[in-house]
Amino acid sequence: MAERFANRGLLGELAAEFAGTLILILFGTGVVAQVVGGGIGDHDSIAWAWGLAVVLGVYTASRISGAHLNPAVTVALAVFKGFSWRKVLPYTLAQTLGAFIAALVVRWNYSEVLAKVDPGHTIKTQGVFSTLPGNGTLPVHMWGGFRDQIIGTAILLFLILAVTDTRNSAPLANLAPFIVGLIVVAIGMAWGTNAGYAINPARDFGPRLASFLTGYGTAWRDQWGDLYFWVPIVAPVIGGIIGAGLYQTLVGRFLPSEGEPEPGRTPPPVDYQAAAGAN
Amino acid sequence: MAERFANRGLLGELAAEFAGTLILILFGTGVVAQVVGGGIGDHDSIAWAWGLAVVLGVYTASRISGAHLNPAVTVALAVFKGFSWRKVLPYTLAQTLGAFIAALVVRWNYSEVLAKVDPGHTIKTQGVFSTLPGNGTLPVHMWGGFRDQIIGTAILLFLILAVTDTRNSAPLANLAPFIVGLIVVAIGMAWGTNAGYAINPARDFGPRLASFLTGYGTAWRDQWGDLYFWVPIVAPVIGGIIGAGLYQTLVGRFLPSEGEPEPGRTPPPVDYQAAAGAN
Amino acid sequence: MAERFANRGLLGELAAEFAGTLILILFGTGVVAQVVGGGIGDHDSIAWAWGLAVVLGVYTASRISGAHLNPAVTVALAVFKGFSWRKVLPYTLAQTLGAFIAALVVRWNYSEVLAKVDPGHTIKTQGVFSTLPGNGTLPVHMWGGFRDQIIGTAILLFLILAVTDTRNSAPLANLAPFIVGLIVVAIGMAWGTNAGYAINPARDFGPRLASFLTGYGTAWRDQWGDLYFWVPIVAPVIGGIIGAGLYQTLVGRFLPSEGEPEPGRTPPPVDYQAAAGAN
Amino acid sequence: MAERFANRGLLGELAAEFAGTLILILFGTGVVAQVVGGGIGDHDSIAWAWGLAVVLGVYTASRISGAHLNPAVTVALAVFKGFSWRKVLPYTLAQTLGAFIAALVVRWNYSEVLAKVDPGHTIKTQGVFSTLPGNGTLPVHMWGGFRDQIIGTAILLFLILAVTDTRNSAPLANLAPFIVGLIVVAIGMAWGTNAGYAINPARDFGPRLASFLTGYGTAWRDQWGDLYFWVPIVAPVIGGIIGAGLYQTLVGRFLPSEGEPEPGRTPPPVDYQAAAGAN
Repeated sequence: MAERFANRGLLGELAAEFAGTLILILFGTGVVAQVVGGGIGDHDSIAWAWGLAVVLGVYTASRISGAHLNPAVTVALAVFKGFSWRKVLPYTLAQTLGAFIAALVVRWNYSEVLAKVDPGHTIKTQGVFSTLPGNGTLPVHMWGGFRDQIIGTAILLFLILAVTDTRNSAPLANLAPFIVGLIVVAIGMAWGTNAGYAINPARDFGPRLASFLTGYGTAWRDQWGDLYFWVPIVAPVIGGIIGAGLYQTLVGRFLPSEGEPEPGRTPPPVDYQAAAGAN
Repeated sequence: MAERFANRGLLGELAAEFAGTLILILFGTGVVAQVVGGGIGDHDSIAWAWGLAVVLGVYTASRISGAHLNPAVTVALAVFKGFSWRKVLPYTLAQTLGAFIAALVVRWNYSEVLAKVDPGHTIKTQGVFSTLPGNGTLPVHMWGGFRDQIIGTAILLFLILAVTDTRNSAPLANLAPFIVGLIVVAIGMAWGTNAGYAINPARDFGPRLASFLTGYGTAWRDQWGDLYFWVPIVAPVIGGIIGAGLYQTLVGRFLPSEGEPEPGRTPPPVDYQAAAGAN
Repeated sequence: MAERFANRGLLGELAAEFAGTLILILFGTGVVAQVVGGGIGDHDSIAWAWGLAVVLGVYTASRISGAHLNPAVTVALAVFKGFSWRKVLPYTLAQTLGAFIAALVVRWNYSEVLAKVDPGHTIKTQGVFSTLPGNGTLPVHMWGGFRDQIIGTAILLFLILAVTDTRNSAPLANLAPFIVGLIVVAIGMAWGTNAGYAINPARDFGPRLASFLTGYGTAWRDQWGDLYFWVPIVAPVIGGIIGAGLYQTLVGRFLPSEGEPEPGRTPPPVDYQAAAGAN
Repeated sequence: MAERFANRGLLGELAAEFAGTLILILFGTGVVAQVVGGGIGDHDSIAWAWGLAVVLGVYTASRISGAHLNPAVTVALAVFKGFSWRKVLPYTLAQTLGAFIAALVVRWNYSEVLAKVDPGHTIKTQGVFSTLPGNGTLPVHMWGGFRDQIIGTAILLFLILAVTDTRNSAPLANLAPFIVGLIVVAIGMAWGTNAGYAINPARDFGPRLASFLTGYGTAWRDQWGDLYFWVPIVAPVIGGIIGAGLYQTLVGRFLPSEGEPEPGRTPPPVDYQAAAGAN
C-alpha cells in the first residue's frame, strides 16, 4: 500500500520534473532560436530569458518534485541533502525527456527561420540547441569548456543552496524561484563565454539529441572537430558537487541547525493614508 | 435582489477587465510605437514593456475580476476552472473595448512620429497595433503564425495556472501579478519571432480595428496578401485550452486536491526535503 | 504642544520628500548624463535607472511622508485621498529643492564629460537635466508634449493608486515601492517619445533651474524656440488628477469600501475563484 | 568558554564575508571579462550582473555576518550602527581575500579570451579587474574619480541604510537582498562614468592585486600615469561615512526610535545588529 503510494508519488514527481524542464527548454532554446534565427534580441535577451525560464520551470515543479530540472542538481542533493539515490536516474531521465520534447517543439516552430539563415543545418545554428566551446567562435577548446562548466555549475549549486536554505535568509512568500532564476541570469551574463553555460546535462543532451534527429549532423562535435557532447554532461555533475560542498564548508556549517523561522507575517506597504492622516 | 447584486458585480468586473486591458494596451502598443515610430529602444524594450504592462494590468483588475485581460484566458478558465460561461462574452467584449480605446489613445499621441516614419500609414507601421506573421519581415506565412500562436498561448495558459495555483507554490504577498508579467517577458524574448506573440485575441483585434478606423487600410491582411486577422483570434483560444489542459494533466492532478494550503504557511518553494522525504 | 508636534512631524515629512526626490534625481539625471555624456548605456538603461530611482526614492521616504516625490502625486492625493491641502505647497517645495540639489551634484560630477561632448552647454545636452518635446529631435512640438504629459501622468497616477490600494491587491511585505518603480520603467519604455516622460513638475523644474544657473542658457525654451518649461509643470498636474479620477471611476468605486482586508490574509492575487463564484 | 564561542562566531562571520565577496567578484569581474574579452553583452549586462552579484552575495552571507561584503559598509556601520571596531580589520581582510581569490578564478577561466584580445595584458583589459578614471577612455583624471567615488559610495550607504532600516519600510519576506542589489544596478547605470563604480575597496584592491600577480604590470597606475589604486580604497570609505550620516540626518532621526516595529514582522534579512551584537 505504502509502495503503491510511493509509486504514485514518484509518477507525479517525474511528471513535474518533465514539465518543469519542458518549460525551461521551451524558453531556453526558443530565445536562442529567436536571436540566431529571427535576428530579434541579443545576448542580454538570452541571459534574461534563460533566467526567466528557470523561474517559471521552478514554479511549475517545486511543490511536487522540488524542481531540480537538472541532473547536476539532483546528484548534488543526493550527495549532500539526503535526496534518494534511487530517484536520481528516474529524475535524470524525466528531465532529459522534457528537454528533448521541448527542443523538438522549438525545432518545429522555428523551422522556417532556421532554414533561412542556415539551410544546411550546420554548426552555425547548432548553438540554438546545444552548447559549444567559446560559443563556436572564440578560441576556447574542449578542456577550456570543461574547466568552465565545472566552475559555472559549482557557482550554480553553491547559490541554489544559499538562497533556498531556510536556516540562512531564504526568500519567503514563495519567492525563492524568482531569486533562483536570477542566479541563472547572472551566470549567463558573466559565465557564458567559454562554454555557453549549459551547467545542466539534461538541458544540453536532450536538445542536442533532438537536433541530431532532425537534421543536424554536427551535433556531437565542436568547431575544432573534437567530440564534445560529453563535456556539458560530465563537468556539471562534478562542478555541482564541488559547489554544494563549498557552500556547506564556508556557510552551511556555521548556520544554526535547529528550528525554522517564525510563522506568518505580511504587513502592508506604502501607506499614503498614514501620511495623509498625520495632519 | 440577488439579480441586481449580480448585475452590479458584473458591471464592476467588466469595468475592471476594461481598465486592466486598457493599461495593457496603453503600454503594449505604446512601446512598439516608441521603438518603431520614435526609434527609441529595441526589441528588449518591447519584451520588457509588454511584460510590465501585464504586471500593471493584472494589479489593476485582479481583485475585482481576476484580471483575465485576454479572451483566451477567459475561455480556458471556463473550460477548466468553472468560470461562468455566461460571462465569457461580456468579458471578451470588455477586454476588446479596453484594447480598442487604448490603441486609439496611442494612435493619437504618436500621430506625429507615425506620420513621419510612415506617412501613408502602411504595413510598415501596422505592427504598432496588430501582429503579422514573421513580424512582417521574416519568411513565415499564415499557417506558421497559426501554429506559433497555438504553442505560445499554450505556454501562457500552462504557466498562468502554474504560478497562480495555490496548491502549487504560487507567490504570496500579492506578488503573483509580477510573476505573471515575467511569463510574458519570456514569451516575448523566446516566442515572438513567428507571429509577434499576440497570444490574446483582444490585444490583437482591438488595436487592429482602431488602426483600420484611423487610416490603416492594411489592417486585415498580412505582407503576403493573406487575410490574417483571424489567426491571432482563433489560434490563442485553441492554444489556451491545450496549455491549461496540459497543466492539469502533467502537474495539477498530482497536487493535493482537498482545500487550501495550511494557514499562515510560507514554506520554501524549492522544497528539497519534501521530495527527499517522500521515499 | 500638539502644534509643536505637528510642526516637528512636518519637518520630518519635508526632509523625507527632499531626501527621496534627491535620490530620484541623483539617479535620474545621472543616467542621462552617463548615456549622453559618457556614451555608456542606451535608452533601456535610462528607462531602468529611472524606474530603480523611483524604487529607491520611495523606500527612502515612504514611512515618513508617503513618498510622493512628485507634486502631481501630491495634488492628486489632495484631490482624491484627503491629503492635507495645507501641505501641498511645502511638499512641492521640498521635492523641487531635492531635485535641484541632486541636479547640481550631477552637474558637478559630470562636468568633464559634459564639457567634452557639448563645450557650449547647449540644447544638445540640455536633456540631461530637463525634458524637451520629441526629446529634442523628433517632430513633436509644445502641444504634442502637453498632450503626452497629460496622458503619461494620468497613467502614472492611475497605476500608483491601483498598486497601493489595500482594498485592491496591493503587494504586501513592503514591496509596493518595487512595483511602483516598475510603473516608471514601463512609462519610460512606452511613453517617453513625445516629451521625455517628465510626468513630475519637480523632476523637471528643479534640474532645469540647476542647469540654467550653471551655464545652460537654453534651459527655458525648446528646439523650436517656444517657451516650454511650463509644459512639464502644468500638464502633469492636470494628468495626475485625470488619472486618479479614472481609477476611482473604473476600479476604486467597485472595491469594498469598508475597512481593511482580513487580517493575516494573503489571498491569491489572481483570484479566479472569486470571479467564478460571483455568478 | 565565551571566548571560544566568540572566536567560533567570528570564524563563521569571516567565512561568510569571504564567501559572499567571492560570489560578488566571481560575477563582477566575470561579466566584464565576458563583455571585454568575449565580446558578449554590453554595459547594461555589466550593470545588471554586478547588481545580481550583490543580490546573491548578500543572500549568501546575510544571516551569519550581515553581508557587508565591502569595507566601506563595515566602516560606516562601525561609525553609525555600533558594529564592533575590533571586527573592522578582520572583516576587511576576509572581504579582500574573497575578492582576490574570485579574481584569480576569473583570470584563469578567461585566460584564452583575454590573451586573444590583449596579448600583452595591458591597460586595455585592466578594467576587467580594477577600475580606472573615466573607465580608461573618458577625459576624467584621478581627482575626478576621487570625487565620483565619494559621491557614489555616499549614495550606496545612504540607500543600504534606507532599505534595511526596519523602522522605515524595509522589504519583508527576506527580500531586502534583492532591493540592495537594485541599488548597485542603478549606480552602475547612473554613476559608472567617472570611475567605474568600485564603491568598495575590497572589490577593487583584491582583483587589482590578482591581476598584478598574473601579468598585469599596469595594475597600479591609470591611463594618465598617475598612481591610482588608492583612490577606490580611500574615497569609498569617506563617501560611505558621509552617506550613512546623511541618511541619519535626513531620514533616520525622524523615524520612531523606540524598539522594534509592530509585532508580527519578519526582521530585515540583512541583520547588521545580529552581527554587531555577536561580540
